[in-house]
Amino acid sequence: MRAEFDRLRVVLVATRNSLNIGAAARAMSNFGFLRLRLVDPYEPSYREARSAVGASQILAGSEEFDTVADAVADCTLVVGTTAANRRELHQPLKRLEIGARAIKQRLRSSNVALLFGSEKRGLSNRDLSHCHWLMQIPTREEHRSMNLGQSVAVCLYELARHTQPAAPKLDQEFATAGDAERIGALLLEVLRKSDYLKPPTTVSTAEKMRRTIRRLGLSPGDVRLGLGMLRQILWKLESRDAAKS
Amino acid sequence: MRAEFDRLRVVLVATRNSLNIGAAARAMSNFGFLRLRLVDPYEPSYREARSAVGASQILAGSEEFDTVADAVADCTLVVGTTAANRRELHQPLKRLEIGARAIKQRLRSSNVALLFGSEKRGLSNRDLSHCHWLMQIPTREEHRSMNLGQSVAVCLYELARHTQPAAPKLDQEFATAGDAERIGALLLEVLRKSDYLKPPTTVSTAEKMRRTIRRLGLSPGDVRLGLGMLRQILWKLESRDAAKS
Repeated sequence: MRAEFDRLRVVLVATRNSLNIGAAARAMSNFGFLRLRLVDPYEPSYREARSAVGASQILAGSEEFDTVADAVADCTLVVGTTAANRRELHQPLKRLEIGARAIKQRLRSSNVALLFGSEKRGLSNRDLSHCHWLMQIPTREEHRSMNLGQSVAVCLYELARHTQPAAPKLDQEFATAGDAERIGALLLEVLRKSDYLKPPTTVSTAEKMRRTIRRLGLSPGDVRLGLGMLRQILWKLESRDAAKS
Repeated sequence: MRAEFDRLRVVLVATRNSLNIGAAARAMSNFGFLRLRLVDPYEPSYREARSAVGASQILAGSEEFDTVADAVADCTLVVGTTAANRRELHQPLKRLEIGARAIKQRLRSSNVALLFGSEKRGLSNRDLSHCHWLMQIPTREEHRSMNLGQSVAVCLYELARHTQPAAPKLDQEFATAGDAERIGALLLEVLRKSDYLKPPTTVSTAEKMRRTIRRLGLSPGDVRLGLGMLRQILWKLESRDAAKS
């Protein structure tokens, strides 16, 4: 079980408050999830949290990343937490209890990233575009938004809750987020070379593409196949430009 | 259901920190338990929590008591939370999941008090003597003691968990087989034009492609997006041939 817990990466994105970073680390320690990653934290808070009296091993061993893409690159499943309503979202939304089951299943064989957004705004659309699906703690309609440290505690409690192993399921192999990102980048290049993408729409198109690719649940074989195709198409499109000039 | 939630009294005993009082109130609001009671709180903290910006109705309506006995007087079941080990305790100890079931059962007919002790010492033996039994969140042996606000959040989550209506399921729309076939055919044409496909392998490649596309579970939107991309790439590849001849 501990090996499985060790495959979870708790990723705090753009966290502002050192108390919240500390609270997240404490809940991780309580429930036995030891891998903390921070993306673009507010630096003074991060320093303060690390140097606080009683700061845990978890904080001392935490890793810092510039982008969400880097922080989730070694994970085959990326899950974002959100307080938003379904109608505002572009991705499937699972209730914590259901989502936790899917996460535990995946942790048996590969790494999973669980993302928590900033205290004020949560995860941005760009952050969310890295996620395969989203997870929501079933709070009251009238007061959806939870405190960050409490939200981390509740999610990890639900993940740790059932200690008995579930029945083994057919383990499908999944591509890592890094692989998915590579295929997305190459596809964007092909689409630019084909004049499919107009510059003003590129950012939102890139996010839409990323969401779509995440949702497809590609296998490592799919990625190899896709990358091979795209490289050949790109080569052909470029040789056309070369012939012209 | 709300009537049952209204029968729970969350009782904070000798709480020191205003942030923790605020955090407890926030978690209560998130999960729909609105009756907060404080026994012998540290007065400046209690005042600070009540006057904080965004302080909730819950805090405004909270009740203060001098003794645990007074705070639980209208309850038929009194449950204390603890991080201690069983051997140090004089009362039965239930795991949160089991205990929550018993509490929910009782809430159908009468009031229940759920006690949380001070940040530093937890509930005293005297406080515990008011309890019918004790409840423990299943944390790691190596780090049992939770932050007060997080502990309240996890307990209330578990109490609320089964009683809320399930989130409506996302009705995923799937593309028709005809759509999938069209996207496959167009992709094959692009790949031929790119010299990715060599004639002898075309049939098995087409089948592999079809299997892959079926497995991805594309939506009608994915198909529209994919067809648009492929048409544009194909047009660009063909304009290259036209330019050559």
